[in-house]
Amino acid sequence: MTVDVAGAAAALLAAEDILILTHRRPDGDTTGCAGALCRALRQIGKTAYILDNPDITPRYAPLIVPYAPSEGFVPGFIVSTDIAEEKLFPDTAEAYKGKVDLVIDHHGSNTGFGAQDLVRPDAGACAEVLYDVIVALGAKLTTEIAMCIYIGVSTDTGCFKFSNTTAHTHAVAAACLTAGVDGGEINRALFETKSRPRFEMERIVFDTMEFYEDGAIALALLWRADIDRTGADMDDLDSIASLTRQVEGVQIGITLTENRAGTVKASVRTTKEMDAAALCKKCGGGGHIRAAGATFDCGMEQAKAAILRAAREQFHAVG
Amino acid sequence: MTVDVAGAAAALLAAEDILILTHRRPDGDTTGCAGALCRALRQIGKTAYILDNPDITPRYAPLIVPYAPSEGFVPGFIVSTDIAEEKLFPDTAEAYKGKVDLVIDHHGSNTGFGAQDLVRPDAGACAEVLYDVIVALGAKLTTEIAMCIYIGVSTDTGCFKFSNTTAHTHAVAAACLTAGVDGGEINRALFETKSRPRFEMERIVFDTMEFYEDGAIALALLWRADIDRTGADMDDLDSIASLTRQVEGVQIGITLTENRAGTVKASVRTTKEMDAAALCKKCGGGGHIRAAGATFDCGMEQAKAAILRAAREQFHAVG
Repeated sequence: MTVDVAGAAAALLAAEDILILTHRRPDGDTTGCAGALCRALRQIGKTAYILDNPDITPRYAPLIVPYAPSEGFVPGFIVSTDIAEEKLFPDTAEAYKGKVDLVIDHHGSNTGFGAQDLVRPDAGACAEVLYDVIVALGAKLTTEIAMCIYIGVSTDTGCFKFSNTTAHTHAVAAACLTAGVDGGEINRALFETKSRPRFEMERIVFDTMEFYEDGAIALALLWRADIDRTGADMDDLDSIASLTRQVEGVQIGITLTENRAGTVKASVRTTKEMDAAALCKKCGGGGHIRAAGATFDCGMEQAKAAILRAAREQFHAVG
Repeated sequence: MTVDVAGAAAALLAAEDILILTHRRPDGDTTGCAGALCRALRQIGKTAYILDNPDITPRYAPLIVPYAPSEGFVPGFIVSTDIAEEKLFPDTAEAYKGKVDLVIDHHGSNTGFGAQDLVRPDAGACAEVLYDVIVALGAKLTTEIAMCIYIGVSTDTGCFKFSNTTAHTHAVAAACLTAGVDGGEINRALFETKSRPRFEMERIVFDTMEFYEDGAIALALLWRADIDRTGADMDDLDSIASLTRQVEGVQIGITLTENRAGTVKASVRTTKEMDAAALCKKCGGGGHIRAAGATFDCGMEQAKAAILRAAREQFHAVG
């Protein structure tokens, strides 16, 4: 059943022993939402915990790990934050499939798997929705809660850079700064600081990047040995595929990553003239119009030849 | 004489034949402010122009170039935007030194060179001040004016990333998006797109970056022949010096650039533990605590040895 912000707040106010779920490969938005909601619920006197997420990385651990359920806690009300469908539950949440009482999300593709669903696709970040819920709960926006919200909002909008940023996004950010959040410090850690492994990965992308069709197609190669040598983890590899598209003039950016199994993953990013999904479909893959992928059961050189052929075909068909 | 927003608006409403000045090496803020003010003044029936700026780059030209004074225009009222002192006037503004009627700025170091000065150091961007002036003028925030304001605000705050971003900054951005600005598209051009020369420069920085003292000191070398080969201009080189500091663990980031004259420029960027100004002072330079520079009358290798020695001295003195 669809609910609005007031309905979601009413459900939470009536609930006891609340357990909050985050999604697989947790990012700043799902952990920011869970962290903010748990702190706000405790502030107004509720018992609330955040379910352990085995994929949690050091960057976002402080938001949720201190709120892991204590031994013997039996949840009476389950809330999911920023989770579009039950398939995205972490393994630890297997038992809660079909049992979510309240969904809070901003994905247009949300399957509505909760008893009540608050889904606002107009929100750039789920943390924006969370902010409205917290206000409706009558909780005070402490600096710590505001920090969780701010991290969710800034990470999901590329620090207010992406087109999903709205006037409401900025209004929420303004409220967070007023509540004492040190945005400059948070953003330096989130957006201005590259780990050494991430730096080494970028160096490889830059080094290997080749240009075709007068700079309209860029292609970078990430060999497994290089990835392993840098020690890059998931946080480090996040968004590395978009580097190719950042070069002016590039309409099709391709990153080929050698998988451990010997297969090759192609990540394709396009600008508005080109269709990444159509391109990858030709190679047995798929995805979104600006971001898609395909997997090749062959070596790098063959994968490179195949994806380049598809890219050139599209480039000449469109151009 | 210091004036507030209402005073500045009153002065503009009483003025005729207004000429607006931008600063040397014009950036998004000075051109955004001038562009917004000129369009707003014309909207409310004033004659207004923006003085030519010989340093203008293609990126910001559309904001000011169409508003260059027509032949025979005799200004009756001079406004400067985002200019901290008369030394920063472009050569074309030489005749207006000592003759500025209204200063609109946000630099704490502003020398107050106008007959009236509206200086708000709390503003992350001068465009924030401009926004308030435009509201006080009673002008409508058209999409085009809002776009100028948005460019000023987003470029001077690193797209809302830097610590100079306040709740007011976000409130101004929200107003601009509500007025129809396509923030996503603007930011993609300003922050997500690297020109090929800029990309090539970054590739060189990445390739040449060396680490010392367990990664606490990073040093990159930009040889003149490489810079010339890439065709990098001022926009491309902008902020390249900060790349070294972006690597996690780096406390002192040094970029050495070979000048055309054969001298070497050192740009030093530090994190909060280290003092860039003190470090550069040891080499005959100076600057701010987090960003400073020095020039060496010698070759790259000697300059590298000298600056590394100073950096290591500071690192061991502090550490």
